[in-house]
Amino acid sequence: MRKLISALFASVMCAGASAADSNTNIIFMVGDGMGVAYTGAYRLYQDDLTTPELDTTIFDEMLVGMSSTYPDDHYQVTDSAAAATALATGVKTFNGAIGVNPQHTPVISILDKAKELGYLTGIAVTCQVNHATPAAFVAHADSRQSYEKIADQYVDLRINGKPKVDLILGGGQEYFIRKDRNLVKEFETLGYSYHADIKDLGKIKKLPAIGLFAKGGMEPALESDHPLRLAEMTGKALELLHTNSPKEKPFLLMLEASQIDWCGHANDVACAMGEMRDMAATMKLIKQFIDKNPNTIFVATADHSTGGLSIGSRGQYQWGAGVVRNIKATAPTIARQLLANKNNWKSLWQSLTQIKLADDEQKALDALISQSDENSSELVVSQVTAQVLSYIDKYSFTGWTTKGHTGEDVQIFSYGKGKSNFEGAMDNTDIAKKLFAYIKP
Amino acid sequence: MRKLISALFASVMCAGASAADSNTNIIFMVGDGMGVAYTGAYRLYQDDLTTPELDTTIFDEMLVGMSSTYPDDHYQVTDSAAAATALATGVKTFNGAIGVNPQHTPVISILDKAKELGYLTGIAVTCQVNHATPAAFVAHADSRQSYEKIADQYVDLRINGKPKVDLILGGGQEYFIRKDRNLVKEFETLGYSYHADIKDLGKIKKLPAIGLFAKGGMEPALESDHPLRLAEMTGKALELLHTNSPKEKPFLLMLEASQIDWCGHANDVACAMGEMRDMAATMKLIKQFIDKNPNTIFVATADHSTGGLSIGSRGQYQWGAGVVRNIKATAPTIARQLLANKNNWKSLWQSLTQIKLADDEQKALDALISQSDENSSELVVSQVTAQVLSYIDKYSFTGWTTKGHTGEDVQIFSYGKGKSNFEGAMDNTDIAKKLFAYIKP
Repeated sequence: MRKLISALFASVMCAGASAADSNTNIIFMVGDGMGVAYTGAYRLYQDDLTTPELDTTIFDEMLVGMSSTYPDDHYQVTDSAAAATALATGVKTFNGAIGVNPQHTPVISILDKAKELGYLTGIAVTCQVNHATPAAFVAHADSRQSYEKIADQYVDLRINGKPKVDLILGGGQEYFIRKDRNLVKEFETLGYSYHADIKDLGKIKKLPAIGLFAKGGMEPALESDHPLRLAEMTGKALELLHTNSPKEKPFLLMLEASQIDWCGHANDVACAMGEMRDMAATMKLIKQFIDKNPNTIFVATADHSTGGLSIGSRGQYQWGAGVVRNIKATAPTIARQLLANKNNWKSLWQSLTQIKLADDEQKALDALISQSDENSSELVVSQVTAQVLSYIDKYSFTGWTTKGHTGEDVQIFSYGKGKSNFEGAMDNTDIAKKLFAYIKP
Repeated sequence: MRKLISALFASVMCAGASAADSNTNIIFMVGDGMGVAYTGAYRLYQDDLTTPELDTTIFDEMLVGMSSTYPDDHYQVTDSAAAATALATGVKTFNGAIGVNPQHTPVISILDKAKELGYLTGIAVTCQVNHATPAAFVAHADSRQSYEKIADQYVDLRINGKPKVDLILGGGQEYFIRKDRNLVKEFETLGYSYHADIKDLGKIKKLPAIGLFAKGGMEPALESDHPLRLAEMTGKALELLHTNSPKEKPFLLMLEASQIDWCGHANDVACAMGEMRDMAATMKLIKQFIDKNPNTIFVATADHSTGGLSIGSRGQYQWGAGVVRNIKATAPTIARQLLANKNNWKSLWQSLTQIKLADDEQKALDALISQSDENSSELVVSQVTAQVLSYIDKYSFTGWTTKGHTGEDVQIFSYGKGKSNFEGAMDNTDIAKKLFAYIKP
């Protein structure tokens, strides 16, 4: 892991060598679902066990403020679409809305404005690239569920005759390569290179380019051969956007650690920590870039919190970072592997989790697993998954209140040029308004 | 309520007229248990319903940073004693410790240092004044449970021959007026005036003084005739400390909204919001004071979060601020009143909560209440209390993960001279270290 981070840093360092912008590069990042408990838990998760002190994180280094997140009805808890629209456009809207206001009228995003003014633009996310958060920077739809319509707009909506985004990295092949329309081919016709495997990231030598590295969302960080895939994509994006930017034009890069939220919905704390590690590595990389290219503002925040996560639960005054650190896969993957090895599940459980179960816990799991057969239904998988999660939560003292989102304020992190603009408490729409002010002819 | 706040403001304004300090007054406040969800929920709770926007709060106005809260073992969740010791002395220690380090050696607090240098000092809290948080500023004990030993130290520990605290306001008569020792009499012998009713606050005309307004903790804000009792005590404290401070000597005032935590332990969200209103009113008052007396630094934080509170729960994307606003008492009080009026409990429920229960919910409550008799045990009270809370949570979409504390970072609020010192992320011990630097000969 350390080696990978070093390699990423090296590429960014090189990119940084030719800094000569007159305006300000904008790097905006969302940790989807990353409420306050996630950064706190991650501090414990990443702690270097060879030193007595608790090590601080890049989140600690960059914390500047907090943001409220409610949608147009402030008694509601936001979804990712309304929150992304607020963060991209500065407009409060209804849950489900992508880049449209409460009257369903399209509104312009910081990416739109930047492109209008000739900036290079990029998006790198770990979900499908047409998912709610990135979509709100590019598209307009009354429903975030209109995945194909939103994907179409990545090609169809043009500024000065060209698609809005010069570099698109993430997942989403199934939405872009369809029977009715092959958007990848259309991108290629427009001069984009296409890349279908994250291993080929190094092969992207120029813009425009599109890389779709998974059918839908990318592999969870915890299970991926590229556990720091967002950091990898970000390193490449910074290199490309920086070296290719027209003279005296800055770039705008939108990033999302998309799957913190998915792990939160699943109430899977080990899954979430895997995603947090990728988010933290990405932020470290950005810091290195900005130290070489100070004409850059970086802002990161969450769109909302997910799961009602708490550090400690059910009266326990501790958190089992060590337990979480030992979990080798997401809970559904653990469940499937146990079910696929029903005669040998106990030793597999041990190697995948290192949690020593009590006898009654082992029996409960055994009952579920032994009742299954080779054609075990998804119902059994979900039952075993729930059991696995309950043990992880119990032994790590992790609490959850919901499988959905919650309405607490989220943190704002900033670094670079004018980071004091983002200090203190504000609304999510204020973040967009402040970023708009950076974008100049 | 508005009238009361105006009256409090008026007294502070007068106090402010004679500002002439060369050094800096310190006002340090703890919202016990006040995690991020509490300030967010309070924003919704206090919203002026006659305007379409969500009104911001004094917390929004003063947010500057966040603090980690762990005790000496960073995988543990802190209790109030270790956290208060960190905030008072800058030293990490074990849970339960009052003003002693991990080797059980007494450590000096910001109040100690201020007193050594001739500052006037004050404490105003809504718990008993010898409870963990205020105690860590004054006393030293291996266990926060040593209430009588700690109370003794308020008289016995002397700096320059006098008790450390010139103004003591809060609850705790049972610990100070005992068979074995009457500490109040001892204080009177030392020149303190004593006041046993918060109604007599206005009668305190000079220092030193001690006001113990309840046997243990004061009445919960939600049920008190003085719902803004911390704000009232603070107004009086600022007036006394400011006008009596020796020439060129500033004062140090320690405040605690103590019962946010108690409501959190009870998982009683309406109770917590009552305490939050008092905390907010107190902070508004302090802001007014500092606007007239800019030679003052105010810092407020929480010692930890309590209850794993979330805004929204169990998949619901909303929070019922209106439901919470209508709750007239804490859940145990509602339970006792229902049990005392078993033939008429339904209309009483309606007037105390305005929650319209479903038939099965009403039946479940009825079964509990009708089985009780005049000598109903505390067990029945606690069963009804639990039922009441479950309905409040259900209808307000409030989530909890524990009856204890949780380990997420908490917010830091600051106003006045050098508030930028408290910006960004830090540890709770850093807050004390920064405050120590303000205290000068």
